[in-house]
Amino acid sequence: MISNSRIDMRHRTLAAMGSSFGVLFRITTFGESHGPGLGVVVDGCPPQLPLDVAHIQAALDRRRPGQSRLVSQRKEDDKVEVLSGVIDGMTLGTPIAMLIRNTDARGKDYDAIARAYRPSHADYTYDAKYGIRAVAGGGRASARETAGRVAAGAIAEQLLARLGVSIVAWVDEVSGIAANVDPDAITRDAVDATDIRCPDPAAAAQMIERVERARKDGDSVGGVVRAVARGVPPGWGDPVFDKLEADLAKAMMSIPAVKGIENGSGFAGTLLTGSDHNDHFYRRDDGSIGTRTNRSGGIQGGISNGEPITLRIAFKPTATIMRPQPTVDRDGNETVLEPKGRHDPCVLPRAVPIVEAMMALVLIDHALRQAALR
Amino acid sequence: MISNSRIDMRHRTLAAMGSSFGVLFRITTFGESHGPGLGVVVDGCPPQLPLDVAHIQAALDRRRPGQSRLVSQRKEDDKVEVLSGVIDGMTLGTPIAMLIRNTDARGKDYDAIARAYRPSHADYTYDAKYGIRAVAGGGRASARETAGRVAAGAIAEQLLARLGVSIVAWVDEVSGIAANVDPDAITRDAVDATDIRCPDPAAAAQMIERVERARKDGDSVGGVVRAVARGVPPGWGDPVFDKLEADLAKAMMSIPAVKGIENGSGFAGTLLTGSDHNDHFYRRDDGSIGTRTNRSGGIQGGISNGEPITLRIAFKPTATIMRPQPTVDRDGNETVLEPKGRHDPCVLPRAVPIVEAMMALVLIDHALRQAALR
Amino acid sequence: MISNSRIDMRHRTLAAMGSSFGVLFRITTFGESHGPGLGVVVDGCPPQLPLDVAHIQAALDRRRPGQSRLVSQRKEDDKVEVLSGVIDGMTLGTPIAMLIRNTDARGKDYDAIARAYRPSHADYTYDAKYGIRAVAGGGRASARETAGRVAAGAIAEQLLARLGVSIVAWVDEVSGIAANVDPDAITRDAVDATDIRCPDPAAAAQMIERVERARKDGDSVGGVVRAVARGVPPGWGDPVFDKLEADLAKAMMSIPAVKGIENGSGFAGTLLTGSDHNDHFYRRDDGSIGTRTNRSGGIQGGISNGEPITLRIAFKPTATIMRPQPTVDRDGNETVLEPKGRHDPCVLPRAVPIVEAMMALVLIDHALRQAALR
Amino acid sequence: MISNSRIDMRHRTLAAMGSSFGVLFRITTFGESHGPGLGVVVDGCPPQLPLDVAHIQAALDRRRPGQSRLVSQRKEDDKVEVLSGVIDGMTLGTPIAMLIRNTDARGKDYDAIARAYRPSHADYTYDAKYGIRAVAGGGRASARETAGRVAAGAIAEQLLARLGVSIVAWVDEVSGIAANVDPDAITRDAVDATDIRCPDPAAAAQMIERVERARKDGDSVGGVVRAVARGVPPGWGDPVFDKLEADLAKAMMSIPAVKGIENGSGFAGTLLTGSDHNDHFYRRDDGSIGTRTNRSGGIQGGISNGEPITLRIAFKPTATIMRPQPTVDRDGNETVLEPKGRHDPCVLPRAVPIVEAMMALVLIDHALRQAALR
Repeated sequence: MISNSRIDMRHRTLAAMGSSFGVLFRITTFGESHGPGLGVVVDGCPPQLPLDVAHIQAALDRRRPGQSRLVSQRKEDDKVEVLSGVIDGMTLGTPIAMLIRNTDARGKDYDAIARAYRPSHADYTYDAKYGIRAVAGGGRASARETAGRVAAGAIAEQLLARLGVSIVAWVDEVSGIAANVDPDAITRDAVDATDIRCPDPAAAAQMIERVERARKDGDSVGGVVRAVARGVPPGWGDPVFDKLEADLAKAMMSIPAVKGIENGSGFAGTLLTGSDHNDHFYRRDDGSIGTRTNRSGGIQGGISNGEPITLRIAFKPTATIMRPQPTVDRDGNETVLEPKGRHDPCVLPRAVPIVEAMMALVLIDHALRQAALR
Repeated sequence: MISNSRIDMRHRTLAAMGSSFGVLFRITTFGESHGPGLGVVVDGCPPQLPLDVAHIQAALDRRRPGQSRLVSQRKEDDKVEVLSGVIDGMTLGTPIAMLIRNTDARGKDYDAIARAYRPSHADYTYDAKYGIRAVAGGGRASARETAGRVAAGAIAEQLLARLGVSIVAWVDEVSGIAANVDPDAITRDAVDATDIRCPDPAAAAQMIERVERARKDGDSVGGVVRAVARGVPPGWGDPVFDKLEADLAKAMMSIPAVKGIENGSGFAGTLLTGSDHNDHFYRRDDGSIGTRTNRSGGIQGGISNGEPITLRIAFKPTATIMRPQPTVDRDGNETVLEPKGRHDPCVLPRAVPIVEAMMALVLIDHALRQAALR
Repeated sequence: MISNSRIDMRHRTLAAMGSSFGVLFRITTFGESHGPGLGVVVDGCPPQLPLDVAHIQAALDRRRPGQSRLVSQRKEDDKVEVLSGVIDGMTLGTPIAMLIRNTDARGKDYDAIARAYRPSHADYTYDAKYGIRAVAGGGRASARETAGRVAAGAIAEQLLARLGVSIVAWVDEVSGIAANVDPDAITRDAVDATDIRCPDPAAAAQMIERVERARKDGDSVGGVVRAVARGVPPGWGDPVFDKLEADLAKAMMSIPAVKGIENGSGFAGTLLTGSDHNDHFYRRDDGSIGTRTNRSGGIQGGISNGEPITLRIAFKPTATIMRPQPTVDRDGNETVLEPKGRHDPCVLPRAVPIVEAMMALVLIDHALRQAALR
Repeated sequence: MISNSRIDMRHRTLAAMGSSFGVLFRITTFGESHGPGLGVVVDGCPPQLPLDVAHIQAALDRRRPGQSRLVSQRKEDDKVEVLSGVIDGMTLGTPIAMLIRNTDARGKDYDAIARAYRPSHADYTYDAKYGIRAVAGGGRASARETAGRVAAGAIAEQLLARLGVSIVAWVDEVSGIAANVDPDAITRDAVDATDIRCPDPAAAAQMIERVERARKDGDSVGGVVRAVARGVPPGWGDPVFDKLEADLAKAMMSIPAVKGIENGSGFAGTLLTGSDHNDHFYRRDDGSIGTRTNRSGGIQGGISNGEPITLRIAFKPTATIMRPQPTVDRDGNETVLEPKGRHDPCVLPRAVPIVEAMMALVLIDHALRQAALR
């Protein structure tokens, strides 16, 4: 049975590479918001390690919508099922597949926007690429895809803990309101103490007020997430293209809504002179080598130097707002997009576990590449 | 003849992935500053295209040291030889290998620093990883490695030109002195009109003065390079991990001395509300779809939208300065590093062609992935 | 919180690459026989193509045990669920995940062999690599893993049909009993007409008798599967490492129990002189170019030439037999393995759809690499 | 300067993947017979290892033409220059680039065949794929490309020697004349004792006579190369797609003129029953586990078992013969190809070092993947 019809390749794309991340600890996510479910396959996890599924579920619970009035009220249980790679709580060294069923599809809410391109969303570009609308969150550009990343990141985090590495991220700025904290002292408990996930209670209160105001206005706000990895030994990362900061930058920029990334001194560092910026080496009491300052953000020449690895990540204000906006539909006609459906006035709190997951995935991959797990 | 001695793997690293970049247009750089030479192999260049070797040489000339008194006086001819993949000026579709011989090795200049770790250099981290000093520029962390990238980027640029895509980068800030220019109007000629490669003559004069002062002080300065790609059609980039901005972020962060990267509105965009930040679609006179503003920086949901792609890249002040600095040597003894050798008080002008090359390499790779070359 | 317990890496392996196959049409299989289920993620399938799930299920039905008395009576429904990548019967261009739940685990049958290494199985080598027994089919070396390949291969086959390419494989030899058929005339219906999947009825009868005798003897037999792909246009395959025959050889050798592979004239061709072996080109009536003979097996210099692509694949006799065998247990003690559990005296009939699937996966990958889908 | 002319992609191919081999020990070959030179970049070689360039040169000398009257008289010095990755005879852990200049281009010899497709060569398929003739050995399908593989393989071999692994290959059959040797006793000296590289002197004499006769007839002959790797520990190789025998099969099938490959019992093993074929485990005097027979060829379930790894590789008779042959030219006209140029009546002796190199490349890659180099 041979068909004569050729495959229509006007919208051909070679997407094979696009859904996987990592070299030796390699994940592949799958799934759309409105299909049966979504998930991830983790290939490269070493065998014979205890795996705590409750910890994975807890990470997913931090990411899912509906946790507080600050974020989207879309209801998803996000219950994870481990399909393979683990028996009796121990890893087998084989691929770990995890599935999260969709429960709250509600495609109907999106009918109104089925034809109009939402401003600063992926609707138009997705259509240009695939010839298919990403409507109703059906596409892969949906933030819901990050559930698979968080599940995989939780496994990476468990491996990193065995190597003495811990990661914490928090909301450092919302709409210009900045936290005033000592990055070296932040714990995840302190982060989760407020709905906004900012460990400075005073700033957190202001941020929450700002988000509430945006909600009332039918508007949205952006901000900055800060992340630090402690305990990374010297020697992780490669010196040329796969610099540790380069892989971290890619990881963070692949999170929806991210528009900027800094390691160490970032853009502010461009204002200093070399004599003020350089981090001087010294000998610690235990004989190891440290730097007196950490403008390098824990990485020099692409390779970790043993100091905390520090990142700042800029998230734009959410594109979905509850206001009419001028736009164009699929046929090229100018039109007005009327607001409808649910609204997340600030994605920053839910972005925190995603940032942590992507940081964990980059670090465990380079740990394996450096054969650090001996 | 079987040896009993096992391989010493204390410093084992799995570097195989680290020297290649790109998926379908894939480059592999090789070479150290003090060996016979360095170069690059480009795999994935389509066949039957005219290749202009003079254009490649011109790109290398823009990168090499010794062009003006603003940059390092190290003398390298950087003459490129095309070893394969091209016959009678036409590509064969086979790997294009290019070799640049080293001529000005001068290993002796570096004797003094052979044991002390230079602050904010890759000496210590390289040693921690490989058990080998990156001294004398011998390591791959040397900026000289970027010559191979620039040669490959020049090929990418020639392919992109056939697709109607052009790239231009310039020095936008030095030590806080900012250019005041219209990004849409910048040409490469305007950029090259000043030694500092800033197209705003007034700002350029101030920048040059600032760099001269740093030189006299034995110090160094940092800054920001801005880059724009014009003519990229809608549809390039992937929606998940290999977002166009993610691959661009990795590309830029892999350039020595880069500490931050922004696409579109970047960190400043976090101060806006969604209603102010969203880019509204409209219909152009020719029927195509555009956006009235470009805070998205030409990319939405990981995929190009047809608007100019805009980047800002932060370069820290050069780590090499002509001042004594406290540090530690390989044996862990605290010591003072005395200045010696050559000194590049500001890498920004030479960074411009490197930024352009990395941007071209990302774009041509995604062009091929989107099968855009039909 | 730094853990003191390092990860035990005596059995460390970097398995990340091991569960994926293909470059642009890339599959990743997951799952063990005795966990919740197994499956596959297909990344790189083009968007907007109709996908026939019934055809995938039919392919799985041809592979599963219990189809006839000739093969293992293990009962597995092997019902496939498509989790993602398809909506309303059309592909989205996103990863297609497929899940097959395990229903007939029966771990208890394997208790007896939990400690003794089964001869010519993967028990010992798996233990040496991972420090974990692949007992009870729990490991990835189990033939059950191939269900994921067959599901993915069925998708590849549907794409290939649109390009005019069809694949058929059959049992050509069992224990030296050879079919006498015209390879150009074989249909899948003729193959499936006998339980042994040999399209020569006379030879099939002899083969079935031979397999029955082996079953009664508690023994097993091997044989040769032949495969042909018709309609592949000239130009698929790469000229150096990724020659079409090289990727086919890897694909076939990755099927459990395969010990040899031939393309075209194979080993018999080494007996000919060049003047007898060379395939002479001629002009077909339609103006296209063909060869008068096909000792090249449809591939010259790694690239398809438009003639049928022909393969022969050698399967060793099944390692599981119903006889006591001397062996060694995990502690190094010599022992005797007593037979127990189920027994598949000849895997050849069930190997046919696996061979077809692997051939389809290689061909569609090279079709995409050649941009043949325009 | 934006060109309006689109890139002609009728012959578009995504060749990026095609010139590289290996995952962690990854080589990329480049170069054509008639350009400036050819070579290889080895990425992933561990640092701090002594590298013997004379050993690399010796391997190349075994491969090059003109060694004896049995093989092509084309004169190539094949002098290797190491461009990077090695200083003072020690590896740096950075890419090792090696260059071999072309000296004996002689393009003119090939003028006569510039238009006619040579039977069973890659001329037609190369043209179909790239739209470019592989004439004059200019294409990558030329056997000359294997020089880069041999140079890289010599490095792999030096690493393997440190792990106690040695490889030897020899000519086992020429045109049906078979060697009668004990595979466990063959040394490379015994192989090189005859021009035909067969360690059985009596068979070697017959083989040489057969090759001489083919030369006089203007004809060519094929044969079988056998290869064995000794000292590989249990645990190398992956259990699913990247089985050790699968990667070896791909490696061998990627050598020009190979049409078949066997591991262990190969096709002959299909004639045995399981009870005769199974390799029984026993405990060696030193407590390690071995098998009493080696029909598995040193690999079970994709993973090495500690026994010698055995391969047989079928080489077709050389396609170039000194006889007129009917064929078709580029315009589709039927014509006769008149013999011209040089003639290699039997490639087997020169194939021996290529087989060894490819085997070494697969083994060192899996050694690194198994972290065996600790």
